[in-house]
Amino acid sequence: MNELGGQLLSDVQGRTRERVARAALSRLMEPQDAAGLALVRAAGAVDGLRIATGELEPGPELEKEVTSLLADNGISSGGAGLAAALRRWAPRIPDLAPERDLATMQRLGGRTIIPGDPTWPAQLADLGLHEPLCLWWRGNELEFPPVRRVVALVGSRDSTSYGASVTGDLAYGLGQRGYTVVSGGAYGIDAHAHRGALTGGTTAIPTIAVMAGGVDRYYPSGNEDLLRAVANQGAVIAEVPPGSAPTRYRFLQRNRIIAALAAVTVVVEARWRSGALNTAHHAESIGRTVAAVPGSIHSANSAGCHRLLRDGGAVCVTDVGEIAELAGSSGEGLVEDKGAAVSEHDGLTLEDLILLDALPVRSTTSVEKLAVVAGLSPESVRAGLGRLGLLGLAVSVSGAWKRSGKSG
Amino acid sequence: MNELGGQLLSDVQGRTRERVARAALSRLMEPQDAAGLALVRAAGAVDGLRIATGELEPGPELEKEVTSLLADNGISSGGAGLAAALRRWAPRIPDLAPERDLATMQRLGGRTIIPGDPTWPAQLADLGLHEPLCLWWRGNELEFPPVRRVVALVGSRDSTSYGASVTGDLAYGLGQRGYTVVSGGAYGIDAHAHRGALTGGTTAIPTIAVMAGGVDRYYPSGNEDLLRAVANQGAVIAEVPPGSAPTRYRFLQRNRIIAALAAVTVVVEARWRSGALNTAHHAESIGRTVAAVPGSIHSANSAGCHRLLRDGGAVCVTDVGEIAELAGSSGEGLVEDKGAAVSEHDGLTLEDLILLDALPVRSTTSVEKLAVVAGLSPESVRAGLGRLGLLGLAVSVSGAWKRSGKSG
Repeated sequence: MNELGGQLLSDVQGRTRERVARAALSRLMEPQDAAGLALVRAAGAVDGLRIATGELEPGPELEKEVTSLLADNGISSGGAGLAAALRRWAPRIPDLAPERDLATMQRLGGRTIIPGDPTWPAQLADLGLHEPLCLWWRGNELEFPPVRRVVALVGSRDSTSYGASVTGDLAYGLGQRGYTVVSGGAYGIDAHAHRGALTGGTTAIPTIAVMAGGVDRYYPSGNEDLLRAVANQGAVIAEVPPGSAPTRYRFLQRNRIIAALAAVTVVVEARWRSGALNTAHHAESIGRTVAAVPGSIHSANSAGCHRLLRDGGAVCVTDVGEIAELAGSSGEGLVEDKGAAVSEHDGLTLEDLILLDALPVRSTTSVEKLAVVAGLSPESVRAGLGRLGLLGLAVSVSGAWKRSGKSG
Repeated sequence: MNELGGQLLSDVQGRTRERVARAALSRLMEPQDAAGLALVRAAGAVDGLRIATGELEPGPELEKEVTSLLADNGISSGGAGLAAALRRWAPRIPDLAPERDLATMQRLGGRTIIPGDPTWPAQLADLGLHEPLCLWWRGNELEFPPVRRVVALVGSRDSTSYGASVTGDLAYGLGQRGYTVVSGGAYGIDAHAHRGALTGGTTAIPTIAVMAGGVDRYYPSGNEDLLRAVANQGAVIAEVPPGSAPTRYRFLQRNRIIAALAAVTVVVEARWRSGALNTAHHAESIGRTVAAVPGSIHSANSAGCHRLLRDGGAVCVTDVGEIAELAGSSGEGLVEDKGAAVSEHDGLTLEDLILLDALPVRSTTSVEKLAVVAGLSPESVRAGLGRLGLLGLAVSVSGAWKRSGKSG
C-alpha cells in the first residue's frame, strides 16, 4: 500500500470511529444535552465518548473548556456541568452497543450520518451547540437540499377539513416547484403535508419526516403506510437511536430539527397552545422565517396561527408563491437570539421535563429505573421527583413513583 | 351694550362669517384641494374666499406663502399653484350660495361645523393641511368622542355571510364597550357595522356614517332606513355640501376622514383591490393603527385583508378585546405601534412617524421616492432620515434607505 492509500485508509477508519462514537453518544444523552454537546465540541466525539463512559479522565482544562462553552451558550452550570452530566449518563453506559445500532440501521436499509458526511444537512449547523450528534436516516441517500429549497409545513393533529385541504394544496404545489417538504410524521396537518408532497414532488427528496422516537418503528401506527412511502421516496429521520420511545421531551427537541432544516416554517393550523407553535419558536430563535396560514376567526384550529400573526413573528401566507418568495429571501444562518422556546415547557427545567416523560402513568417505578430511562443520575432523579411532587405532577406510592392525575 | 358684550357679539359675528366662508369654499373646491387649503391656511377662510372668488388680489407675498406651504407638504406647484387653482375654481363661482346651503342643513335638522367648534372632532387636525374645511353634520349635536374611543370598521360591499357575522359581532361588542363605530354607510360590511353598533351601542354617538356625497340624500337608497337610524341615534356627515354627488374621487377622499376619526381602522373583508384598502393606507399615512380580520384563504373577500397582514402594515385581530387593546394603545395623532416598538416610537413627531411608515422593511428606497410615498419634501425627508438614523430606526445602505431591524 502506498502512502496515499494508507492515508485514505486511516481517514476512513477515523470517520468510522467518529460515527460509532456519535451513535453511542446519541444513546447516552438526550437530545440537546448541553454539557454532552459541549464535551464533544471540546474533546471530539471519540474522546468525548471515552470521557462520558469513564474510560478517560476529563482533566481540569477540559472541564474549564466545557464550562466556558456552556457559558458562551448562556447555560450556567455552576462549575458542575460535566460532573453532573457524568452522573446523569452513568446509568445508561451498560446499554451501549453502537455497532448493534449501526447494524440495525443497515438491516432497515438505512444508515447513520454525521456532520461532515456529504449527505449531512449543512443547515443544521445553524443550531450551533445544539446541532444533533448524528441522524438516524431511513430513506434515499442523497445530497441534502440547501435550506432555501426546504419548507416545513406543520400544524395540529386534529386538523379540520380546511386545514387538510390547504395543507394538501400547499404541499403538492411546493413539490411541483421542486421544494422538499419537511414535517413531523404525525396525524393531521403533518400527514397531509407528507401526502401532498409525495404526490406533487418533483425532486429526489420530495419529503422528509423527522421523528421524535427511533426510526425502526413507524409511529404513530396509523401512519405506518404513509411513513413507509416517505422512507421509500424521501426520508424518515431521527436524532435518537433505534428503539427510542417518542417522549414529550423528544417531541419538543425534534421540532428544532424541523425548524433548522427549512428556510420557512409554515404553521397551517394550530390551536392557541400547540406543538406547532413550539416549532415556530425554534425557527424564530435561529433566525428562520415563520409563516402562518390565516383561517376563520371562528375556528379554534386557526387561533394559534392568528396568535403568531398578531404577535408579529409570523408572515401571513395564502399560497405557494408567497411561501416560495419567503424561502428565497430567508437568510442562511442569520441568528437572532430570542430565547422563546422555554415558555412552552410550562416553566419546568429541561431535566424535569425529561423526568416527567419518564414517569409511568399507571404503574409505579423506582428511582434507579427512572435514572436509566431518563438518562439522569439517581441524585438528579430524587431532586427532580421532589420538585415534580411539589408541583403536583408526581406522586410517591410506598417509595415508588408515578405521575399524578393532573400532569396528563 | 357694554364692552364685554360688544366683544362677544363681534366674536359671534366673526364665527358666523368664518362658517359661511368655509361652507362656500367647500362647494368651490373638491376635497383635499391642496392649493385651496393652503390659501385658507395663509389668508384665513374669509379672505381666502374673497381671493378665490376674485374679489381680492392675492399679492406676491401671499402667493409665495401658499407655494411654500405646498412645498412643505411635498406638493410641487411649479410656482403656479394658486394661479392654476383660481382658474379651476372660476366655473363654480356663479353657483355659490352658502347661506342657502346652511339653511338647507337647518331644515334637515342638521348644521355645519368648522374647526374650533366644541363639536369639531379634534383628531381631524392630524390630517394637517388636508383637514376638511367644514363638516356637514346630520344627527346628534354632541361633543365628539376622543380618537381612542373611536374604531372604524370597513370592508367590501359584497360581503360574505362570514364577513356579515364577524362585522355584526365586532360592531355590537365595540358598542357595548362604549366605542363609537365609524364606517362609510355603504352596502355590505359598512351596513353591518352601523347596524351592529346601533344595536349594541351604549354611548351618545354609537355610530357615524361618513358620506362621499351630500348628506341631504341618504345614499345608497337601499340603506335609506339604516342611514336615517344612524342620523337619529348617531350622525351622518360629509365634507361636501348638500346636493353633491358621490363621485369616485370623493369616495377616496372621504376615506381619509374615516381613517382620521378613528384610532384603529379594522378591515373586516376586502378583495385584493378594494376601497377599504385605500382607507387602510390613509390610516397608515397619518400614523393610525390598521388592523385586519383574517379569513379563509379560499375566500376572495379576505384576500385584501391577508394582503394587508402580509405587507406588514396591519395587525391581525380576531375579537373585540384585541381591537380595544389597539385603540387604547393608540395615541391621538401619535401612534404607538404594537409590541416592542412602543418605546422607540415614543416621542417621534407625526412627520417622522409618517416617514418611518413609508420606509420599506426589506428593500431600500431613495429620498425622492420617500418624499412621494410619505408626502414630505425631499428636505424634510433628509432631515427626518437623519433623526431616525440617530434613533437606530433607519439605516442607509450605500445611499439608499430602509428600516433598521429594531424598528419592527
